[in-house]
Amino acid sequence: MVRSWGLPELDDPPGHVVGILSGGVDSTTMAFVLRAVGSRVSLGSFDYGQRHLRELDSARALAAVLGAPHEVINVRPVGALLSGSALTDPSVEVPRGYYTDESMRRTVVPNRNAMMLDIATGIAIAQGADAVAFGAHGGDHPIYPDCRPEFVRAFTEMVRVANDGFISSRFRVVAPFLSLTKSEIVRIGARLGVPFELTWSCYEGGAVHCGHCGSCVERREAFALAGVHDPTSYPLRGRLGDRAV
Amino acid sequence: MVRSWGLPELDDPPGHVVGILSGGVDSTTMAFVLRAVGSRVSLGSFDYGQRHLRELDSARALAAVLGAPHEVINVRPVGALLSGSALTDPSVEVPRGYYTDESMRRTVVPNRNAMMLDIATGIAIAQGADAVAFGAHGGDHPIYPDCRPEFVRAFTEMVRVANDGFISSRFRVVAPFLSLTKSEIVRIGARLGVPFELTWSCYEGGAVHCGHCGSCVERREAFALAGVHDPTSYPLRGRLGDRAV
Repeated sequence: MVRSWGLPELDDPPGHVVGILSGGVDSTTMAFVLRAVGSRVSLGSFDYGQRHLRELDSARALAAVLGAPHEVINVRPVGALLSGSALTDPSVEVPRGYYTDESMRRTVVPNRNAMMLDIATGIAIAQGADAVAFGAHGGDHPIYPDCRPEFVRAFTEMVRVANDGFISSRFRVVAPFLSLTKSEIVRIGARLGVPFELTWSCYEGGAVHCGHCGSCVERREAFALAGVHDPTSYPLRGRLGDRAV
Repeated sequence: MVRSWGLPELDDPPGHVVGILSGGVDSTTMAFVLRAVGSRVSLGSFDYGQRHLRELDSARALAAVLGAPHEVINVRPVGALLSGSALTDPSVEVPRGYYTDESMRRTVVPNRNAMMLDIATGIAIAQGADAVAFGAHGGDHPIYPDCRPEFVRAFTEMVRVANDGFISSRFRVVAPFLSLTKSEIVRIGARLGVPFELTWSCYEGGAVHCGHCGSCVERREAFALAGVHDPTSYPLRGRLGDRAV
C-alpha cells in the first residue's frame, strides 16, 4: 500500500525509529506513516525558544493519539545563542504571505536540522533504535539546505562514522517525504486519518493560526491543492497570500 | 613557530573560531594555540549533566585567563536521555586505572562530539565565525570513533552541505591535535604557558582529582612522558594504574 504512495525507502521499514515531531502537518503525517508500516516509533520534540511554542502542545497531543513515547527536549539555552532567525529572535519579523527566497531565509535557524537529528541520533543509540526520521519535504529544498537529499546523505555518512562500532552499519536517516510536495503529504495524511485539527503550522506566537505567515499560507495552499478540508480555524478567511482561494 | 609543532592546519589559521572547551588539558591547550596563531577565539562548554561538573569551573577560569568570550551551554535535558555512559549515568561505574578498550567504551556518550560540534557550528554561523574547533587527540582514536580523522572529514562535509549558502565554502572544523599524543599536547601547552593548575581531567565527581580514574591516569602519564611538572593535587601519589611512576 505504502509503495503506491511514492515512499520507496519504507518498503524496508526501520524496526525502531526515533522521529522528530514538530507538531506540524509533515512530521505528524510522517509519524503516522511510520506506524502504518509497522515501525516501533519513539518521538522527540524540541523547545528551542521558538515563538510558536504552541506547536509543542500539538506535538504532545499527537503523540498521545499515536500512543508513542514522546519527549519534549529543552534546548532553549542553545536557541538563545542562535539569534538572527525570525523563528527565535523576537526582533526579526516573521515573513507574511507566500514565501519568497528572501523571506524564507529569515526563518533559517543556523544548522538546525543537523543539531536536532544529532540529538535524536544520540537518543536512538541509547535506546538501541536503528533509525532516526524527520519530515522535510520537497518544497523546503530551495532555501533550507538541511532539507535536501544531499544533506540526508552527508548526515547519514557522518553519523555512521561518528558512531562506528556502537551502531549497526544499517543505521538510517529516514526522510520519507524528501521528494514529495506538501499537498501530497496532506493527501497521505488524509488517507491515514491524521487528526489535522491537532496539528500546528503557524510561526507567529498566537493562540490560533494567524492564516497569513509564510507557514500558514503554505499549509492552506497544500490543503487546497490536495482537495482536503483543513479543519484549522483561521481568524480571517478568503485571501491566501496575494491570491484568492 | 607553530609549524615546528606538527600542526600544519594552523599554518592558515581561522579568522574567528568557536572552540569547544571542556576545561581539560587538550581543549585548553588548543584554545591557547589558537590564540597564539592569531585567531579570534570564542569558547563554549557543555553542561550535559556529567558527574565531573567541576570541569566547568575550570573552563570558566581558563576562558577568563584567555580573555575569550565563553558560554556554558546547558544541555542537561539532552544528557538525561543519553544514559548508559559512565560519564552521565550514576549507575555506571567510572573505569579506574589504565584504559582498556572495554573500560573506555563505558565512557562513550552516544554521538557526543557530533552534537557538541553541531551546536558550536550553529553558534559559529550566528556569529559569522569561519571555523569550529575541538581538542581530540590521537590517543582517543582507538575507542572514540568521533575523535578520528574520518569523523572530522565527514562532519565537515555534512556541515558545508547543511548550511550551503549560509556559510563560506571555506568553513572548517579545526582539530589540530588529531595526530598528536597527549604528552605532545602537554609539551606544547608548557611552551605556551598554559596554567595547567586550572585544568580539570578527573571523571569522578570529587572536589580534587582522584588520581585513579582512566582520565586521571592518562593525564598523569602524559605529564610524566612529557617531562613536564603536573601541578595538580592528587590525594594519593606513587602508583599510576598498575605501574609505579
